[in-house]
Amino acid sequence: MENTEIWLGSLITKTPQEGRELAIKMARKTIGAIQSDPEVKKRLRPQYAEDAGLLVASAEVVALEFQTVAAANNYWR
Amino acid sequence: MENTEIWLGSLITKTPQEGRELAIKMARKTIGAIQSDPEVKKRLRPQYAEDAGLLVASAEVVALEFQTVAAANNYWR
Amino acid sequence: MENTEIWLGSLITKTPQEGRELAIKMARKTIGAIQSDPEVKKRLRPQYAEDAGLLVASAEVVALEFQTVAAANNYWR
Amino acid sequence: MENTEIWLGSLITKTPQEGRELAIKMARKTIGAIQSDPEVKKRLRPQYAEDAGLLVASAEVVALEFQTVAAANNYWR
Amino acid sequence: MENTEIWLGSLITKTPQEGRELAIKMARKTIGAIQSDPEVKKRLRPQYAEDAGLLVASAEVVALEFQTVAAANNYWR
Amino acid sequence: MENTEIWLGSLITKTPQEGRELAIKMARKTIGAIQSDPEVKKRLRPQYAEDAGLLVASAEVVALEFQTVAAANNYWR
Repeated sequence: MENTEIWLGSLITKTPQEGRELAIKMARKTIGAIQSDPEVKKRLRPQYAEDAGLLVASAEVVALEFQTVAAANNYWR
Repeated sequence: MENTEIWLGSLITKTPQEGRELAIKMARKTIGAIQSDPEVKKRLRPQYAEDAGLLVASAEVVALEFQTVAAANNYWR
Repeated sequence: MENTEIWLGSLITKTPQEGRELAIKMARKTIGAIQSDPEVKKRLRPQYAEDAGLLVASAEVVALEFQTVAAANNYWR
Repeated sequence: MENTEIWLGSLITKTPQEGRELAIKMARKTIGAIQSDPEVKKRLRPQYAEDAGLLVASAEVVALEFQTVAAANNYWR
Repeated sequence: MENTEIWLGSLITKTPQEGRELAIKMARKTIGAIQSDPEVKKRLRPQYAEDAGLLVASAEVVALEFQTVAAANNYWR
Repeated sequence: MENTEIWLGSLITKTPQEGRELAIKMARKTIGAIQSDPEVKKRLRPQYAEDAGLLVASAEVVALEFQTVAAANNYWR
């Protein structure tokens, strides 16, 4: 119980840009859920950010998460 | 019959975060359905968690599963 | 005519878990449609199940098929 | 004009299984549109069918095309 | 202003097959937007068409674009 | 606060082509959010544009972002 941080209380955001930030957070939290060891995460982090292929793959995950967030917010129309 | 564990009784969850956990479970259960040998699974597990490319690919699967769970829950609106 | 097995009579399933099984079947049947030689299929099978990258890629296909099955079933709501 | 074969007159099919066949055809036709040289296509074909990674990637394309076909047919409900 | 060619005036097409052609055009135009140097594009083109993995990946992009075009056209129903 | 540039005020665009440009911008901004070091970004940029595999992967991200933008705009119908 102590470990369970509630980080996703809602998919609703005030603006598209906040929705974008939530999408990035969602992608990051999944990585954290699969690999929870802070040492390993620290070791892997520079790989994401400096490998062009990993950056594009990460951008794909964010695009998918944002599809969900945007639909939840009825596209902030 | 004995082997069939019912692990997906419903796509409905109380909160977005529980939906997130369900999405991760769905991704994991697929892996388990394709590769059911516990020895092999144990051998492969560290690969997912320590290979940046596999972590991002896994995050993509979770994002796709979550799209389904979120739609099922009408985005917890 | 003789070769045509009707394996996808409907996308409707009684439960989410049966929908999951259908999604896995759909993914497998596509592989079978592209590569129908039983000898080659037998040779490739261990690769899917023991290569972490292929397992994650297979899980992505299942996630996509399940999106369709779940929508067809109106998410078993 | 002469070269233009009309192969996609409609997304509507009588059954889910015919929808599946259409999805496979759509994926194949895209390959043919990008690489129209019959010699090259012949040379590449065994690669798809005997490389586990390419088979899974091809199955992903079919899953995406089928999402469209299934929605067009209102999931044959 | 002079460089801005309007190539996407509408997502509406008369037939599914024209929708398919639009989806292929959309995929190609993105490549052109990221890599606008005609010399480099000419150098890369044979790679797409003769590498089985790139062909399948390209087919995936076309499938995604077609999902959008098909929805825009209400599946030409 | 000073660093926070509001670049995504709305998903609504006047035309499909502007929607396309927004989709490309969204993909680029994600890369920028993950890798914010201008030196590294400058070093990676030629890789995207001259590697056929990265170009196709980038086109996939744009296709996904455009799905969201197009839905937000009700396909500019």
